[in-house]
Amino acid sequence: MANTEGSKLWGGRFVGDTDPIMEKFNASIGYDQRMWDADIRGSKAYVRALEKAELVSAEEMAQILDGLNQVSEEWSKGVFVLKPEDEDIHTANERRLKELIGAAAGKLHTGRSRNDQVVTDMRLWLRDAITILSDNCLQLISTLVERAAVEIDVLFPGYTHMQRAQPIRWSHWVLSHAVALSRDVERLQEVKKRVNVLPLGSGAIAGTPFNIDRELLRKELGFDGVSLNSMDATGQRDFVAEFLFWASLCLTHLSKMAEDLMLYSTKEFSFITLSDAYSTGSSLMPQKKNADSLELIRSKAGRVFGRCSGFMMTLKGLPSTYNKDLQEDKEAMFDCYDTVQAVLQVRTGVLSTLKINQSVMEAALSPDMLATDLAYYLVRKGVPFREAHSLSGKAVFTAETKNITLNQLTVTDLSAVSPLFDDDVSSVWDYRSSVEQYSAPGGTAKSSVAAQVEHLRNWLKQQAQ
Amino acid sequence: MANTEGSKLWGGRFVGDTDPIMEKFNASIGYDQRMWDADIRGSKAYVRALEKAELVSAEEMAQILDGLNQVSEEWSKGVFVLKPEDEDIHTANERRLKELIGAAAGKLHTGRSRNDQVVTDMRLWLRDAITILSDNCLQLISTLVERAAVEIDVLFPGYTHMQRAQPIRWSHWVLSHAVALSRDVERLQEVKKRVNVLPLGSGAIAGTPFNIDRELLRKELGFDGVSLNSMDATGQRDFVAEFLFWASLCLTHLSKMAEDLMLYSTKEFSFITLSDAYSTGSSLMPQKKNADSLELIRSKAGRVFGRCSGFMMTLKGLPSTYNKDLQEDKEAMFDCYDTVQAVLQVRTGVLSTLKINQSVMEAALSPDMLATDLAYYLVRKGVPFREAHSLSGKAVFTAETKNITLNQLTVTDLSAVSPLFDDDVSSVWDYRSSVEQYSAPGGTAKSSVAAQVEHLRNWLKQQAQ
Amino acid sequence: MANTEGSKLWGGRFVGDTDPIMEKFNASIGYDQRMWDADIRGSKAYVRALEKAELVSAEEMAQILDGLNQVSEEWSKGVFVLKPEDEDIHTANERRLKELIGAAAGKLHTGRSRNDQVVTDMRLWLRDAITILSDNCLQLISTLVERAAVEIDVLFPGYTHMQRAQPIRWSHWVLSHAVALSRDVERLQEVKKRVNVLPLGSGAIAGTPFNIDRELLRKELGFDGVSLNSMDATGQRDFVAEFLFWASLCLTHLSKMAEDLMLYSTKEFSFITLSDAYSTGSSLMPQKKNADSLELIRSKAGRVFGRCSGFMMTLKGLPSTYNKDLQEDKEAMFDCYDTVQAVLQVRTGVLSTLKINQSVMEAALSPDMLATDLAYYLVRKGVPFREAHSLSGKAVFTAETKNITLNQLTVTDLSAVSPLFDDDVSSVWDYRSSVEQYSAPGGTAKSSVAAQVEHLRNWLKQQAQ
Amino acid sequence: MANTEGSKLWGGRFVGDTDPIMEKFNASIGYDQRMWDADIRGSKAYVRALEKAELVSAEEMAQILDGLNQVSEEWSKGVFVLKPEDEDIHTANERRLKELIGAAAGKLHTGRSRNDQVVTDMRLWLRDAITILSDNCLQLISTLVERAAVEIDVLFPGYTHMQRAQPIRWSHWVLSHAVALSRDVERLQEVKKRVNVLPLGSGAIAGTPFNIDRELLRKELGFDGVSLNSMDATGQRDFVAEFLFWASLCLTHLSKMAEDLMLYSTKEFSFITLSDAYSTGSSLMPQKKNADSLELIRSKAGRVFGRCSGFMMTLKGLPSTYNKDLQEDKEAMFDCYDTVQAVLQVRTGVLSTLKINQSVMEAALSPDMLATDLAYYLVRKGVPFREAHSLSGKAVFTAETKNITLNQLTVTDLSAVSPLFDDDVSSVWDYRSSVEQYSAPGGTAKSSVAAQVEHLRNWLKQQAQ
Repeated sequence: MANTEGSKLWGGRFVGDTDPIMEKFNASIGYDQRMWDADIRGSKAYVRALEKAELVSAEEMAQILDGLNQVSEEWSKGVFVLKPEDEDIHTANERRLKELIGAAAGKLHTGRSRNDQVVTDMRLWLRDAITILSDNCLQLISTLVERAAVEIDVLFPGYTHMQRAQPIRWSHWVLSHAVALSRDVERLQEVKKRVNVLPLGSGAIAGTPFNIDRELLRKELGFDGVSLNSMDATGQRDFVAEFLFWASLCLTHLSKMAEDLMLYSTKEFSFITLSDAYSTGSSLMPQKKNADSLELIRSKAGRVFGRCSGFMMTLKGLPSTYNKDLQEDKEAMFDCYDTVQAVLQVRTGVLSTLKINQSVMEAALSPDMLATDLAYYLVRKGVPFREAHSLSGKAVFTAETKNITLNQLTVTDLSAVSPLFDDDVSSVWDYRSSVEQYSAPGGTAKSSVAAQVEHLRNWLKQQAQ
Repeated sequence: MANTEGSKLWGGRFVGDTDPIMEKFNASIGYDQRMWDADIRGSKAYVRALEKAELVSAEEMAQILDGLNQVSEEWSKGVFVLKPEDEDIHTANERRLKELIGAAAGKLHTGRSRNDQVVTDMRLWLRDAITILSDNCLQLISTLVERAAVEIDVLFPGYTHMQRAQPIRWSHWVLSHAVALSRDVERLQEVKKRVNVLPLGSGAIAGTPFNIDRELLRKELGFDGVSLNSMDATGQRDFVAEFLFWASLCLTHLSKMAEDLMLYSTKEFSFITLSDAYSTGSSLMPQKKNADSLELIRSKAGRVFGRCSGFMMTLKGLPSTYNKDLQEDKEAMFDCYDTVQAVLQVRTGVLSTLKINQSVMEAALSPDMLATDLAYYLVRKGVPFREAHSLSGKAVFTAETKNITLNQLTVTDLSAVSPLFDDDVSSVWDYRSSVEQYSAPGGTAKSSVAAQVEHLRNWLKQQAQ
Repeated sequence: MANTEGSKLWGGRFVGDTDPIMEKFNASIGYDQRMWDADIRGSKAYVRALEKAELVSAEEMAQILDGLNQVSEEWSKGVFVLKPEDEDIHTANERRLKELIGAAAGKLHTGRSRNDQVVTDMRLWLRDAITILSDNCLQLISTLVERAAVEIDVLFPGYTHMQRAQPIRWSHWVLSHAVALSRDVERLQEVKKRVNVLPLGSGAIAGTPFNIDRELLRKELGFDGVSLNSMDATGQRDFVAEFLFWASLCLTHLSKMAEDLMLYSTKEFSFITLSDAYSTGSSLMPQKKNADSLELIRSKAGRVFGRCSGFMMTLKGLPSTYNKDLQEDKEAMFDCYDTVQAVLQVRTGVLSTLKINQSVMEAALSPDMLATDLAYYLVRKGVPFREAHSLSGKAVFTAETKNITLNQLTVTDLSAVSPLFDDDVSSVWDYRSSVEQYSAPGGTAKSSVAAQVEHLRNWLKQQAQ
Repeated sequence: MANTEGSKLWGGRFVGDTDPIMEKFNASIGYDQRMWDADIRGSKAYVRALEKAELVSAEEMAQILDGLNQVSEEWSKGVFVLKPEDEDIHTANERRLKELIGAAAGKLHTGRSRNDQVVTDMRLWLRDAITILSDNCLQLISTLVERAAVEIDVLFPGYTHMQRAQPIRWSHWVLSHAVALSRDVERLQEVKKRVNVLPLGSGAIAGTPFNIDRELLRKELGFDGVSLNSMDATGQRDFVAEFLFWASLCLTHLSKMAEDLMLYSTKEFSFITLSDAYSTGSSLMPQKKNADSLELIRSKAGRVFGRCSGFMMTLKGLPSTYNKDLQEDKEAMFDCYDTVQAVLQVRTGVLSTLKINQSVMEAALSPDMLATDLAYYLVRKGVPFREAHSLSGKAVFTAETKNITLNQLTVTDLSAVSPLFDDDVSSVWDYRSSVEQYSAPGGTAKSSVAAQVEHLRNWLKQQAQ
């Protein structure tokens, strides 16, 4: 009993027993062990500050650093043995340190609290995670941009409201998703800026005594700045909430692209064929080839936002400073990281390997998609657009009534709609010249799409620096 | 290669390789193995239907049942060995069956699809889970009711807007939470009713051929009814969404009670003392005793609703029938079950062991909490309530101005507010007679609180039947 | 100043001024005036209880009832004039009553609190709203069922994972949505049961004094039961949360159906044509006809769940009893009601008027959708299903390789896959006989679909009673 | 009929009637009229681009500008009359323009689509809204900082887990909230950067033809940049989602502060007294003074996140480009703006007027809050912290057992715990010297709190530039 008590951080006081369900309910070691490395790095920096503050001797520091290196090695080799009383990674590492080096280990936590320790670990962990996600995003964007560059001459129907709207370049569609992702990268960098702030030295609430040099800690751990207020530093999880929302918005983009691709890969559209590597079959129907990869990606937008939603609800109405409720932060953070990372890689794989069916895409262009061009024909002859739009609408109606396509209307048919229609109307019925009209920045003309490719290539180069 | 292919359900067709990240992304075995027993029970029933439909012989049925029993034993003994190609529990069990009994195993899936199989397994699993949760709820309610019965004579301040409002019985507060939980039990039973419907025999989408007797399946598996439409049966997850929301609302109740208890256990209120078993200390501050159990419960209301929220978002805008997106159903269901189960047990522990500080509670009653009674005094003398309320308010203001308590106002002071105040006003300043006024059903008078205890005891008896 | 004070319910005490932004922030009259009728009905019942308790005389009761009738008439004629100090509907009605009948009005609130008054009003309002929504649901289900009955002979592709799966009846699809909605009706009735409980007589927190007869109130107001605990009665909003989630799940169903219909109304599928009444055009593209009605319905699933989500977050961690936070309940409730009501009606309109393109639907059936039947052919010849599935998969692969359809494979081609294939395999290639296999309950055979129609017609009749 | 048709933008084509419920369901004028000014500003810039592109003459441009100015004047004077066919603000403004200037109005929409028009209007509107919110935030921060400067000498208990932890400065608490808000301002500026990008000239999907000069549009409308891809520009609502989440996180901070203040204003804590201007009374209980302002603020964190949640769900799985689902963007944006703006102003009012009860605050400090200092006393004598923590815990336990306060333990009592305790231990029992230990950046020592004040004052100055 005395032993068990001794092994808890608050050992000296409690006399009651603990409910085993409560023990399990309270423990975070099941998931926070993932931060073992961040925890050790934080402690290594901290012991240097303790030495500078003369709270440990140079010798004790060396002992502790040595011990921490051994603990680190055990983790990286997968031989660290958890004990039942290791309720979290911080307890586990310190317990092991004590086993390895004895009494000196008891000095490591001087002036530190789990409140500032845990949030330091989280920030170190998340900073690295963000770097990886950023790279994954850039790889996906790069895949999209290079694909767009190669397939720039492919036309296909642009849809709005899931209905055929106007002819566009396939690459224009590809780049629309790349552009959205480039905003995700920008946002992620902004999140990172706020993640990369040192909370260590905030103690439980009031700050740190003993002349702990926070600037030294900052440098050792590579943070960009030092937290401004100890109560805020230990009690806020904005950086987690921001990250969870970042993940949610990013996955919303990827769910959007997934939805498009699923449509394009239906039998009915048949614009694209997914690689078998990203499809699965059916346990019942031998002919099925399902775009499971895309469906999973679409679904993850829900999952990830659920995590964000759950954590925001947990935060709502909490009093300030540390409350145990905040323990919900880590599983949400880890799950969102894992999910987004998998999604980005799978998506890159999907995009690298899918085949487009150019002939089907181009065959899907239909003359009614040029009704706007027909209106523009009249605009060029001086008709106000509103009237031109209405006249073109009448032409569409006439064609429908006659059960022919719009370009099958004779000049006589068209003259009945407006006397301004003339033989030169035939020039309208060309999809390639239609798209070339949209040469303003952001448009679907070849020059404009090429400019987007160039812009994104340059942007990618800047990111790599 | 051929082997690998052979081990997948859709083996015969694919020629491409699979991305290992995609494999992992797609696999559900990590969590759905938890349904091993439900999966085996479903298959055992199914083989009986196959035998009746003459799709397997009596001998083959015996072989399959035997094999399934062996698989079951391996799982329950913890010796079932997963293989890399076991992407889900259904594949794993069937793979193992084949290893054990050979060719006959290949007949088990006749006319069945993973689409109806998985949802059958989930319903079987959740039905059992609901029974457990219902028991946990009842145990907590029972704890509350019995505690209320014992401590019925304790008065303390009732709060609205977190401000002292009127004197009430402690047991009245206790029962307010029991009543909320009794609604949770009712709702859970309604959810169960809709969970307990057989989808097996719906195939992938179109239904089942071969004269599979669905009524036989229903009886074998103890379902109350048979699903009405195969497309709906395989593609809907209402029962999961309902369960997730049930868990969310239930935890909202428990977060409310946790908030009250946290307030009551602050130094400032000091109404209750939590058992050490449900408290923890601080790694920095030796004097701290934190109500971690309550904070964790409060936080879980966010977590669980996050799961509900995430799954609802996943469902939004999905086309009908089975889409792989639905794979998000299981982790959410398991996590909510585990969380609610732990919360209910911890809460029962907290409530069984906390001590109330009756003297502090009663000392917290203050004369201003009887201002309503002062108004009622005037009402009884014929003053319309609105006017009486205003006059009592003036008395409160006078006392505040004089910096004395309300009951320290002399009859002269009060006469200045209203000539109707007389010597008998002293009868107002009695907390015990104040609470006895509220003898209508649901009120805080002793008889009324005792009636609530009786009502809930009877209700609990009915539930046990 | 005195006047302003007099017009507030808590008139007698405050000495400070109020910030106009705070006034507006605090006021609910902008939306809760919608409950004017419920508020008056509640007060009419309440005055009867006051009379029975001898707190008002028979004459005063008559006066108050008369006054309330006048207030009611003003509201129904649209001539009720709000005043700046009417912060909520309760204040407004009582203020007006006082103007109309004078002093006696001041007796109406005796023993009542806004806490029990407001929740009584909400329950009365919501009870009526639920009746309307239930009728709207039934009307939509009826439309679906009758449409299914008429078009029972139309076949079209059943999809899973948005890929063609198996031939099914169009009516089977229609009914799958009707069945989901019938569960919504059931759930709504369960919600109603819990809505229809009387909280009046719970006061602010402690209950009601003065022998107010709650059973009389219950009867007068047509409630099924009386709330059990006054603290719970005034502080819980489960019935609102339940309703918001009900609306969310119902709209998830309608978003699912919308997604299907949007797919079916793309140019590429062309299975259905929406009535112009539920479509809109484009301000730019004259040929466009967009399924705006369906897109709006799909989007509302998000809106409504947002309301549920927001209210659940508001509830999280609230202490028990009434807190002003609960004021968020009403806008959420009204908005969800309005939204669901509009959606149900629009959806009924869409379903009543859309045209199906039977020839396109049937032309979309393709031989590869019979691959499962090809496997079943082998099963009937004794091949275990797993093997049959694999062999059929090989046949699909052969056809794909030869670039022909599955039914164009010769018996020789098929014999290479399995010697069991024989001339009679030609019988497989018939969509109508394929669907007739699924004659078990819930399947897509004609008899089975007709049974579903019959079942739902009976169910509808029961609901109407 | 022709007239009705003429009044719709897609007039020329439809032959069916429209369901009035559908009309209302589809219309956005009820809320989007709020963007009337942005819509007119956008059109004024657009007509200049049309003139440059020679699509309107200089004279027509003048006519249109003149007409738009008149429309603007009607709106600002509140005399603009909506007509039934005005389904949105864009239709309304153009309809009115046509009434005022005739045919030339029909040229305004040349090459523009509602898809790029609406999102331009939203960005203009939101840019202005963000400026206002930013100012409101800064005003609140400034109030906090100046209050902290004045009350820097007030000590009170710092809480973690809602339990007394360590003595801190009241100003340290005040600044912890100011620091959180300063991050909100930073984030808002980042959102603004992405809001302030011109989408006009993206058309419906493909871009703009006719040499519309997008750079001219950008300059005219004061945007920082031009959207990169027309499909993305018209179909993305990231800036709305970001804003909604910004509002949610900001309100989470304000709900946290509200929770603290509600605790502090309970009778039990009595640390602060809210101004009457931000409190309300009870309709039943004359003595009640409720912190309604704080409760409302706390509740709005739910409301606003509900909007974010709802909109994210609406976005989930949407195909790319414009879908009518996006119409959900505006009500969410307006509601969050209105809510946050009210909350910030009310909160500033609350903070400007609340009174602190310094003597109560300081009386709440208790010797057990110095248990950490007692451990530090031993650390300074060379005891490793872990051991010192345990010994201090034993001292706490001894005091509890003896039912005395920690500082009432005699040196003899303490010596029994550790022989290192000596007479100089009395120096520990001083709250003011306790807080002065925390002089590292971010700590609660006077110098450190003053440095925080200085830092924030400088930051505020920079923001004002």
